[in-house]
Amino acid sequence: MEPSTSSNPTDTSNFVEITMDVHEVVPPPHMSTVKRVKTKFKETFFPDDPIRQFKGQPLNKKFILGAQYFFPILQWLPNYSFELFKCDLIAGLTIASLAIPQGISYAKLASLPPIIGLYSSFVPPLVYVVLGSSRDLAVGPVSIASLVLGSMLAEEVSPKTQLALFIQLAFTSTFFAGIFQAALGILRLGFIIDFLSKAILIGFMAGAAIIVSLQQLKSLLGITHFTKEMSIIPVMRSVFDHIDEWSWETIVMGVFFLGILLLARHITIKKPELFWVSAGAPLACVIISTILSFVIKGEHHGISIIGKLEQGINPITAKMLLFHGNYLGLTIKTGIVTGILSLTEGIAVGRTFAALRNYKVDGNKEMIAIGLMNVVGSTTSCYVTTGSFSRSAVNHNAGARTVMSNVVMSMTVMVTLLFLMPLFRYTPNVVLGAIIITAVIGLIDISAAYLIWKIDKFDFIVLLTAFFGVIFLSVQYGLALAVGLSIFRILLQITRPKTVMLGNIPETNIYRDLHHYKEAIRVPGFLILSIEAPINFANITYLHERILRWIEEEEEDEEEEDTRTENFGLRYVILEMSAVGSIDTSGVSLFKELKVALKMKGVELVLVNPLAEVIAKLKKDDEANDFIRADYLFLTVGEAVAALLSTMRSQSPSMDEVLHTIVTE
Amino acid sequence: MEPSTSSNPTDTSNFVEITMDVHEVVPPPHMSTVKRVKTKFKETFFPDDPIRQFKGQPLNKKFILGAQYFFPILQWLPNYSFELFKCDLIAGLTIASLAIPQGISYAKLASLPPIIGLYSSFVPPLVYVVLGSSRDLAVGPVSIASLVLGSMLAEEVSPKTQLALFIQLAFTSTFFAGIFQAALGILRLGFIIDFLSKAILIGFMAGAAIIVSLQQLKSLLGITHFTKEMSIIPVMRSVFDHIDEWSWETIVMGVFFLGILLLARHITIKKPELFWVSAGAPLACVIISTILSFVIKGEHHGISIIGKLEQGINPITAKMLLFHGNYLGLTIKTGIVTGILSLTEGIAVGRTFAALRNYKVDGNKEMIAIGLMNVVGSTTSCYVTTGSFSRSAVNHNAGARTVMSNVVMSMTVMVTLLFLMPLFRYTPNVVLGAIIITAVIGLIDISAAYLIWKIDKFDFIVLLTAFFGVIFLSVQYGLALAVGLSIFRILLQITRPKTVMLGNIPETNIYRDLHHYKEAIRVPGFLILSIEAPINFANITYLHERILRWIEEEEEDEEEEDTRTENFGLRYVILEMSAVGSIDTSGVSLFKELKVALKMKGVELVLVNPLAEVIAKLKKDDEANDFIRADYLFLTVGEAVAALLSTMRSQSPSMDEVLHTIVTE
Repeated sequence: MEPSTSSNPTDTSNFVEITMDVHEVVPPPHMSTVKRVKTKFKETFFPDDPIRQFKGQPLNKKFILGAQYFFPILQWLPNYSFELFKCDLIAGLTIASLAIPQGISYAKLASLPPIIGLYSSFVPPLVYVVLGSSRDLAVGPVSIASLVLGSMLAEEVSPKTQLALFIQLAFTSTFFAGIFQAALGILRLGFIIDFLSKAILIGFMAGAAIIVSLQQLKSLLGITHFTKEMSIIPVMRSVFDHIDEWSWETIVMGVFFLGILLLARHITIKKPELFWVSAGAPLACVIISTILSFVIKGEHHGISIIGKLEQGINPITAKMLLFHGNYLGLTIKTGIVTGILSLTEGIAVGRTFAALRNYKVDGNKEMIAIGLMNVVGSTTSCYVTTGSFSRSAVNHNAGARTVMSNVVMSMTVMVTLLFLMPLFRYTPNVVLGAIIITAVIGLIDISAAYLIWKIDKFDFIVLLTAFFGVIFLSVQYGLALAVGLSIFRILLQITRPKTVMLGNIPETNIYRDLHHYKEAIRVPGFLILSIEAPINFANITYLHERILRWIEEEEEDEEEEDTRTENFGLRYVILEMSAVGSIDTSGVSLFKELKVALKMKGVELVLVNPLAEVIAKLKKDDEANDFIRADYLFLTVGEAVAALLSTMRSQSPSMDEVLHTIVTE
Repeated sequence: MEPSTSSNPTDTSNFVEITMDVHEVVPPPHMSTVKRVKTKFKETFFPDDPIRQFKGQPLNKKFILGAQYFFPILQWLPNYSFELFKCDLIAGLTIASLAIPQGISYAKLASLPPIIGLYSSFVPPLVYVVLGSSRDLAVGPVSIASLVLGSMLAEEVSPKTQLALFIQLAFTSTFFAGIFQAALGILRLGFIIDFLSKAILIGFMAGAAIIVSLQQLKSLLGITHFTKEMSIIPVMRSVFDHIDEWSWETIVMGVFFLGILLLARHITIKKPELFWVSAGAPLACVIISTILSFVIKGEHHGISIIGKLEQGINPITAKMLLFHGNYLGLTIKTGIVTGILSLTEGIAVGRTFAALRNYKVDGNKEMIAIGLMNVVGSTTSCYVTTGSFSRSAVNHNAGARTVMSNVVMSMTVMVTLLFLMPLFRYTPNVVLGAIIITAVIGLIDISAAYLIWKIDKFDFIVLLTAFFGVIFLSVQYGLALAVGLSIFRILLQITRPKTVMLGNIPETNIYRDLHHYKEAIRVPGFLILSIEAPINFANITYLHERILRWIEEEEEDEEEEDTRTENFGLRYVILEMSAVGSIDTSGVSLFKELKVALKMKGVELVLVNPLAEVIAKLKKDDEANDFIRADYLFLTVGEAVAALLSTMRSQSPSMDEVLHTIVTE
C-alpha cells in the first residue's frame, strides 16, 4: 500500500500503525556522588587524560615520563640529530632576519626603547625551548600585545616624560601576565580562552590591525605631535590637524618601502616556496634605508631616525619590578589583558600548526610554558612575548623541524645585541612603521569573515561588534563587548529552546520534525513534541507556556477538522527527550507542573528516551518518581505510540473500528 | 535466538544485523533570513502569542480586546457582582488587618517614618487594580525590598541625621525601580528574572530572612546604639558589645508577643481553615501591646514606643524626586536592585497562585503593572511595593475572588490614615520587631532546600552561595554571586558536553548508551558516539580532543581483544546528532577538521539525524557541504549501520563469512 505524501501535516488519515515490542526504560546504574564529582572533574579539567600513558609502567619509567611531561625538551633532545639541526639552522636564521626589525618596531609600538624588543627575542625563546610542546612556534614580541600594553600603561603614565617608570611598569605588567597565564595552565582553566570564538578573534584582529596601522601614520607622515588615544576618530583628527607637520621626504620613503614590503608579501602568498622573500624583505629594507639615510644625512631632511641604541645583552631587571604603590592596579589589569591576548594568539598558532602537521599540543601545558616565559622575561628586561603568527608561519615554511630554531634565532639576536647595535643608528622610523603595517595586514582575513557571514549571521554580528568596538572604543572594550555578546547569545539560546512537533514517516517507526520532513504525518490522538535543548531554570517558564500553547493550537485545529476522521481528541502528549542533554531541579518541577496541568485537560504526559542523567534526577524527586511509571516511559516514540494505541483500543472498542478503517484505506 | 546479555561492552560477538530501508536525510525547507529572524524574535519576546486572540475578529472587537489587554480591569469589572464583592470584602478586611502593622513595621525596616508604610498600602493597590492580571495578589511593602532599600541608601546618607534627604532618595529610588520594571515589561525582557532560579531564590530569601531577623534584635533587646551594617558578624558584635543596653522589660514583652505570633502562625499552618488567626494576630498584638504600654506607661520603663505619628492621606511628592546631584547614581543603583527583587517576588507570587487556581498571568504585563504602581507611588509618598507572599497567601485563603480585595484593603488603610493614627502612638517598637520576625520566618523553606539537595548537588551549592553570601557579605553581593555561579555552571556545562558511546539493543535497530543500558552491545568496525549538547565555539576544542580520544581508546582495546572475532579494525565513526540542538560556525569547522583527522587514520565520518538547523548550516559551508554526501548522512543509527555494513561486505567478501559466522552463532 502506497502511503500518499500528505502536504497537510494535520491530515492523519494516512497513519499506519506498526506493532513493536516494548523495551523497558531503565534508570542508569547508580553512581555515588563522589564518583560523579570525580568523573565530572576529570572531564572538565583533564579531558586529554594525561595519566593514561603512565598506566602499567615501571616506576623509573613513570619518573622519566613525568619529567618529560613537564619538560618536553627531555623528549626530543635525546633524539636530536645533525640532520634536524641543519633544517632548524636555516629556519632559525630566517626568523631572526624577521625578529630583528620586528623586535625594534614592536617595542616602539609599545612606546618602549627599541632595544627591549631585541632583548625580548633573546631570553624568552630560551625558556620556551625547555618547556614548550609546539614544533613550529616561534616566540617573541607581537603587534597586538605590544599595542595594548603601551596604550593601557600610557593612560596613566607618560612614556615621554616618565620613561623610567613606564619601563618599570611594563616589566611588572609582563610579570603579572606571566603569572596569570601560568596559573590558567596549572589550574587547567585553559578552556576559558575557548570563549574567544573564531568570529570574535577575526573581528578583533582585523580591528586591532586597523588601529595599529593608524598609529603608524605618525611615523609614515613624519608628524611629531600625535594623540595619545588609539581609536579611529581621535587619530584621524590628529593626522589632519597636524597637516603642517607632514614631511614629504618621509612620506616618499615610507610609501616606497611600504610598496616593496607589500610586494614581497604578495610574492610569498602567490608562491609559498619563495617564503624567504617576505621573510628577508624587512631586514633588507632596514639595511637599505639605513644606508640611504646615512648617505643623504636623512635627519637633516626631516626623516626621523632611531638614534643611538644601547648595546649588550639583557640586564637583570628583577629589582625593577614594582609591587607596591599607586600603579599596582594598573599593572595587574594590564598584565591580565595582555596575558589573555598573547595567550590566545600563542595557543591558536600552536594548535593551527599542530593540526597541519598532525601532532598534539596540550593547551594547558603551553600556557604554563608561555607564562613562565613571561615571568622569566620580566626579570631580564623583556616585555610580553608569545608565539607570533607571522614569525611561526615563516618558521614553518622555512622548514623548522623542532623548537631548536628558536635557539638559533635567539643566538643570532644575541650576536646582534653584542656587536651590531650601532648599525641601526641611522635606521629611519618610517621604515619600522612600514614593517609593522605589512605585518598586521596579514591579520585581516576577509574570506574567513565572508564565510561566517554565509553560515551564521549572528556570529557575523559578533564579529562586527568586536571589529567596530576595537576601532571606535578601545581594544579591551571591543573584546569585552564581543565576548559579552557571545555569552548573551548562548544564554538566549538556552532560555528559548527549540520545540518541534514530530510526525511519523510512513511505513516505519521513525518520527521526525514535521516541518523538516514533508512526508511525516501526524498521529491521531497524540501530540508528539521534541524538546531540543537542556531543561533548566532559564527556560522552564518558556517551555511550560510553549507546550501549553502547542496543546491549545491542537485543540483549535481539532475543532476545525473534518469530522470524517472522527477524531477522538487529544489523549496523550509525548515528549521526546533524546535531545534534552541535562536537567536541573527547576526542570524536574516543570514535569510535575505539566503533568498536573495536562491532567486537568484529560491528557496524559508520556516521556520518551530520557537520558541517563535526566532519569536519575527524576527518580530522586519522590513526586516525580511516582508519576514516571513504566506505562508512561518509553524507549522510542514508535514504541510509545504502539503501546498507547493498544491501550486506547482496549479501553474503547469503537476506536478499533476507526483505526481499522484507517489502516485498510 | 536468544542474544545473551553481554556484561563486557566491547564484546561484539552477539551483534545481530537487521536489514532496513534507508531514508534520505533532507535539508529543511529554505527560510529567508528575514523570516528566520522574525520567527526567532517572536519566540523570544512573544512566546504566548498574544496576537492570536485578535485573529478573525471585527474591528470594534479588536479595539475592545486591545483595551482589555492593556487594562485588565475592563475584563472583569463588567462581570462584577455583589456575590463576588462579599468575598472580596472579607478578604480585603483580613489583609488590611495585616497591612496596617506590616506597613508600619516594614517602613521602620527601611529606616523610613512608619506612616510611609501606610501610604504605600493606600495608593499602589489602587493602581494595581486597574493594570494587574492576578486575582490573588495583594500588594504593598515587602520585607526584603524594604531592607535592601534602607541599607543601600544608608551607605551614603544617614537616616538619623539627614532624614529629609533620605526620604527624598527613597522616593526617587522607587521611581527608578518602577521605570526599570515597566521597561522590562514593555521590552518583553521578562525572561531575565527567570535567571533567578529556584535554588537561588530559596537560599537568598532564607539569608535575607536571617538578616532581617537579626536587625530586629535591636528592638527586641531594646538597644539604642546599633551598627549600620547588615551582615551577621557586625550585628552580633553590636548586640554583645551593648549588653548593658539590654532592657529586660523590652525582652519580656518581646518574647511574649513573639510567642503569641509564632503560635498563631503555627495554628494556621496546621489548620488552614483558621487562616484568620495568623491574619488577625499581628493587629491584635498591636492593639493589646498599645493598651498595655499606655496603661503601664511603658516608655518610663525602658520600652521604646513609636511616638506621635502624622495623620492624613498621602501628600503629593512629585516635586521631591531628586534627578540631579551627587546621589543620582545611588538612587539608580538602588532602584534597579530593589526593582529586580520586588519584581521577582511579585511575579513568583502571581505565578504560584495562577497555577493553583488554573488561570494565566502574563509575566511581562504584570511587570508593567508593578512598575507603574511604583512610578505613581513615588509621586504620592509611597516607597517600593509589590505583591507580597504573606499578604497574598492570606488574601487567597480568605477567599478573595478578584483583585477588588486590594481596593477594600486600600480603603481600610485610608480610614486608618484619616482617623486612627493617634491610636498607634503608644505602640511599642518591640511588637513591630516581633511581627517582622514572624513574617520573614515563613521565607525559610527547609523542605524545599532538602529536596534540592537530594536532586542536584550543584544547585544546592548555588543555594548555599546565595544564603551565605547574603548573610556574610550583603544582600546585593550574595544575589550577584549566586547568579554568577549559576551562569558559570551553564557555561561550564556548555563547554564540556556529554559524549556517550552507543550500542545496539539486540534484535532491534535501537541504539542506546552502553553504560546506561546493559543489554546494549558494540558493533564491530563501528564507533558510535552521541553528542548530547549544542556544538559551538565554547566546546569544539574539547569535543575534538574527546572524540579523538574515544578513537585512540578504541584502537588500544582492539589490540587487546580476542583474535577469534577477527576484528577488521575501526572503519566508521558514526556521530549521532539527535541531541545536538544547534551549531555555529566553529561547530561547522569542527566537522571539517574531524573529517580530515579521521581520514588520516583511514576512518570515515558518518553523521546521523542532524537537526534542521544543523543541516542548514553545514550546507552553507562549501567545504562542509561537499563532504556531507548522501552516503555519509543517515536518518537513524540503525539505517547507517545496515547500509555501511552492506558497503563493507561488497568491498570485502571475506568479511561476509565472518559476519555470517556471527549471525548464525
